[in-house]
Amino acid sequence: MAQLRLALAQVNPTVGDLEGNADLIVEWTRRAAEAGAHLVAFPEMMLTGYPVEDLALRTSFVEASQRTLEQVARRLADAGLGDLPVVTGYLDRRADAPARPGRPAGAPLNALAWLHRGRVAVRSAKHHLPNYGVFDEFRYFVPGDRLPAVRVAGIDVAAVICEDLWQDGGPVSVTRAAGAGLLLVINGSPYERSKDDVRLELAARRAREAGCTLAYVNMVGGQDELVFDGDSMIVGPDGRLLARAPRFTEELLVADLQLPEAGSEPLPREQPVRAADGATITVERTVLSPHPVPPYEAVPPPVAPPMDDLAEVYAALVLGVRDYVRKNGFRSVICGLSGGIDSALVATIAADAIGAENVHVVLLPSRYSSGHSVADAEELVKRQGLQARTVPINPMVEAFERELHPSGLAEENLQARVRAVVWMALSNQHGHLVLTTGNKSELATGYSTLYGDSAGGFGPIKDVTKTMVWALARWRNEQAVAAGQVPPIPQQIIDKPPSAELRPGQLDTDSLPEYHVLDALLDDYVERDMGRDALIAAGHDPALVERVIRLVDRAEYKRRQYPPGPKITGKNFGRDRRLPITNRWREPSAG
Amino acid sequence: MAQLRLALAQVNPTVGDLEGNADLIVEWTRRAAEAGAHLVAFPEMMLTGYPVEDLALRTSFVEASQRTLEQVARRLADAGLGDLPVVTGYLDRRADAPARPGRPAGAPLNALAWLHRGRVAVRSAKHHLPNYGVFDEFRYFVPGDRLPAVRVAGIDVAAVICEDLWQDGGPVSVTRAAGAGLLLVINGSPYERSKDDVRLELAARRAREAGCTLAYVNMVGGQDELVFDGDSMIVGPDGRLLARAPRFTEELLVADLQLPEAGSEPLPREQPVRAADGATITVERTVLSPHPVPPYEAVPPPVAPPMDDLAEVYAALVLGVRDYVRKNGFRSVICGLSGGIDSALVATIAADAIGAENVHVVLLPSRYSSGHSVADAEELVKRQGLQARTVPINPMVEAFERELHPSGLAEENLQARVRAVVWMALSNQHGHLVLTTGNKSELATGYSTLYGDSAGGFGPIKDVTKTMVWALARWRNEQAVAAGQVPPIPQQIIDKPPSAELRPGQLDTDSLPEYHVLDALLDDYVERDMGRDALIAAGHDPALVERVIRLVDRAEYKRRQYPPGPKITGKNFGRDRRLPITNRWREPSAG
Repeated sequence: MAQLRLALAQVNPTVGDLEGNADLIVEWTRRAAEAGAHLVAFPEMMLTGYPVEDLALRTSFVEASQRTLEQVARRLADAGLGDLPVVTGYLDRRADAPARPGRPAGAPLNALAWLHRGRVAVRSAKHHLPNYGVFDEFRYFVPGDRLPAVRVAGIDVAAVICEDLWQDGGPVSVTRAAGAGLLLVINGSPYERSKDDVRLELAARRAREAGCTLAYVNMVGGQDELVFDGDSMIVGPDGRLLARAPRFTEELLVADLQLPEAGSEPLPREQPVRAADGATITVERTVLSPHPVPPYEAVPPPVAPPMDDLAEVYAALVLGVRDYVRKNGFRSVICGLSGGIDSALVATIAADAIGAENVHVVLLPSRYSSGHSVADAEELVKRQGLQARTVPINPMVEAFERELHPSGLAEENLQARVRAVVWMALSNQHGHLVLTTGNKSELATGYSTLYGDSAGGFGPIKDVTKTMVWALARWRNEQAVAAGQVPPIPQQIIDKPPSAELRPGQLDTDSLPEYHVLDALLDDYVERDMGRDALIAAGHDPALVERVIRLVDRAEYKRRQYPPGPKITGKNFGRDRRLPITNRWREPSAG
Repeated sequence: MAQLRLALAQVNPTVGDLEGNADLIVEWTRRAAEAGAHLVAFPEMMLTGYPVEDLALRTSFVEASQRTLEQVARRLADAGLGDLPVVTGYLDRRADAPARPGRPAGAPLNALAWLHRGRVAVRSAKHHLPNYGVFDEFRYFVPGDRLPAVRVAGIDVAAVICEDLWQDGGPVSVTRAAGAGLLLVINGSPYERSKDDVRLELAARRAREAGCTLAYVNMVGGQDELVFDGDSMIVGPDGRLLARAPRFTEELLVADLQLPEAGSEPLPREQPVRAADGATITVERTVLSPHPVPPYEAVPPPVAPPMDDLAEVYAALVLGVRDYVRKNGFRSVICGLSGGIDSALVATIAADAIGAENVHVVLLPSRYSSGHSVADAEELVKRQGLQARTVPINPMVEAFERELHPSGLAEENLQARVRAVVWMALSNQHGHLVLTTGNKSELATGYSTLYGDSAGGFGPIKDVTKTMVWALARWRNEQAVAAGQVPPIPQQIIDKPPSAELRPGQLDTDSLPEYHVLDALLDDYVERDMGRDALIAAGHDPALVERVIRLVDRAEYKRRQYPPGPKITGKNFGRDRRLPITNRWREPSAG
């Protein structure tokens, strides 16, 4: 056996910022060198950020990625870091693939490079291209067909990219045949609730299949609707967890590993192997450093404890907001504050993300606002130290009413839209990003006003059901109490029955079932794609099933016009759930 | 040689409306029978409409499609039409495909069926799955691997689906080996400018490759952002055009063909053939009617003349609006009318689509509106007989100003948003669909107000550059003059310099270059994905290139929140151009 100190750089790149991402590689390689690492690995598409979507099809962008990669290799050597092998993801392309219908323009590759002594020593590319959920990689990439097996400190290290771990066959299935002592997997794997359990189980299974230690490095940070949670880890050949990084934060996970030393017999530089998916994968051998490092005293690696469900959701929301604000060049946010639970939670998340001094809230009372709403909102402002302003909307609403005489829904929507005009004007005047406060239960059922409460640039709780909104508010208050602080959200806001306050005495339950009933049904219909009969068989009330299916299907056009927000479930009405707008499909009746 | 009267049913299905689409199959099969046809073909995914997107992943929907297909076969027989073979597209699934990561849930198939004598005689599925532009078929389908060769009236007829014609290899490449006398291609091929020329060339090439006559049937109608233009056609084995249907309208294209009679030697029922793309395609032979029909007098088939460029664009826009209104259950539309060219063209398109009596326009003059704007708008209303109403916006704008004191861009946007609140209130009160009037040049550069002029349910000219807006307006007026009618758009509206009229004396050219310069640059940057250096090398002004790239990239977040509109170019900022919102990529400088 040979020793290896491995560093996994769980960092936060930004899509399109090649220079900034290159700086991150140099900076974190320096940290790895200072920690005495013998090998350092960065996430999938580290150099470009991920996902790049249509940028992959732009020649100038692909060439910039290729050029920047070479520069990074030289910069590392110039900085005295050239002897430390670096594995990183980047965007490349196949030079030998002619244009043809159905092949992405320029034949881009989701690629992996080994940087060593000032040059790019080895290149390979992702074999399995995910094209489901938030992934569209058949649009953007052509598949790779090589497995690099690179000798570092006398150990043969194989390296693959993300989906190659998830699907059967491909390069992972030939890792054992390649005789690798370590399988390195670089990832851009977005957060989903409880995905950490699935990942650990998968890594353990693949380690056993490959018969070697498996190291998994994932990026961290927000990108549009996606949040990457990190969760980098190392498992032994028996599937046992050896090391794990904390989630939702940048981290250098350093671990001392005992790995099988490579044999001394010469092996072919290239060796085609039939993979389990029918493809032929060529094992490509390279030697960077043939001999084991001198024995040294190993330090036990850190194993971050798992997070509980609410803690991880809350952390995803905070990171999603912080990175959307920061990466898009904003410094402050604004949102309406009604005195209800949704806007209270959004303001609290925003304050945790960017500081209360950068969170602007507008109280917009109307003739239907209750006294307690204003008082509760003011109490929340006081507890958190938010930047608050009150703009009563009656004068504007009345100016419209004198001309248009709206009634019913038109009158309710008018108030919501006047509020949006106010916060958009303040946003335009002062440069704040507008946060919308709608939750997933409302969004799913269309219980919101287009260009009213749904107007804004980012929706922090867009993918959070109402039931979970309450749970998160309670959880956040409990955390404060446990830390000896004042709970940020007044209990009154959590306890009162939800109301849009767009007409006298209005309650959400006038229009919608109780949220615990609704949310369970939405989960089965939206997340699980269950049909009408299956929903009823699962125990949901038949009349409610009919009604909610109708509401959800009708609200599709509204959701198309909603702003993005951090994704935390399997389907968040973004690209991962794309139903036609014009759509006459109705679930068939049981009879 | 044997005779065959072939009917291609170029019809307009609706996504999700299985019953309605089934009715269309029965009705148009009846028409084909009345026309004496021996075989009738319907478009791709006829039974479900196309594209169904995530509905393909819903078990209840797939099962409904399978069930409805069987019912249609029985209904045709019950109606005395069972002896006329019917080829149609529908949604099926592979029963033998276990769930695995990366495979669409339920293994759906974009399928093709032959209906005959009350039953489904033959089933096959699309082999090449397009996953570029507006297509996402790797998300939704698993590939088929069979080529049906079905003997009808003594002729062996092979049948494939859409993309199988566009890509090399697959079932089309084994058609010659299968000895087919006719290759039938059923399509859901959306309109793009000048695509008719490409299609004819492609059909001619594939006919020569297959060595037989090729019949191409396409759907017609609007579906969300897509417009299907029909353009069904038949070409001979030498690639010569034999018949062609008019576009943008439902049509039964009937043609008498002379086709090679199948040999009498027995052939294997199933025959695997290695296709040019490396796949194995199984030719599956079925006999529906072994003997040629008795000789009859053939009628020369119709060949619709090609449409000129502006005529086809205008027809696509009218059909897109009409079907979006109709298929979504609206009866009327509303839009703002400023006196400018964009809203004038949108109102004219809408009047042509659904009748002037169903087109409601609101004149919303502000303190900055010029006298001629109001007069021009009123003249347009009078010429076309639109339903008009005037709502001066000063009182509402002033109510906001008293509270918020906006300046600069905030003040300009306020006016645009107050207008949107007015038309949304009228829409909510009266049930009109709101049409937005923004054009592609504005949309690309972000020259519009979020939740202001961009607010609405459908954007008829969303994919039309300003240069083409003028060209279409002139073309529409010329058509009227040629027909002895009053031109619908006052010349004054076409001639005056464009202005948003949001501040005194404002002109578009204050903020943007001349539109003919801008539009040429947008075409190269957006449609062709050209990088900065390539744009400058193509002759665009370097300073303008820098500026427009910055404008277009910055406006990405706005376009994400734009409503859909009919697609007429390669990329219309819908799903076919999906750039990240958070995106720091900037084209590198020349130095």
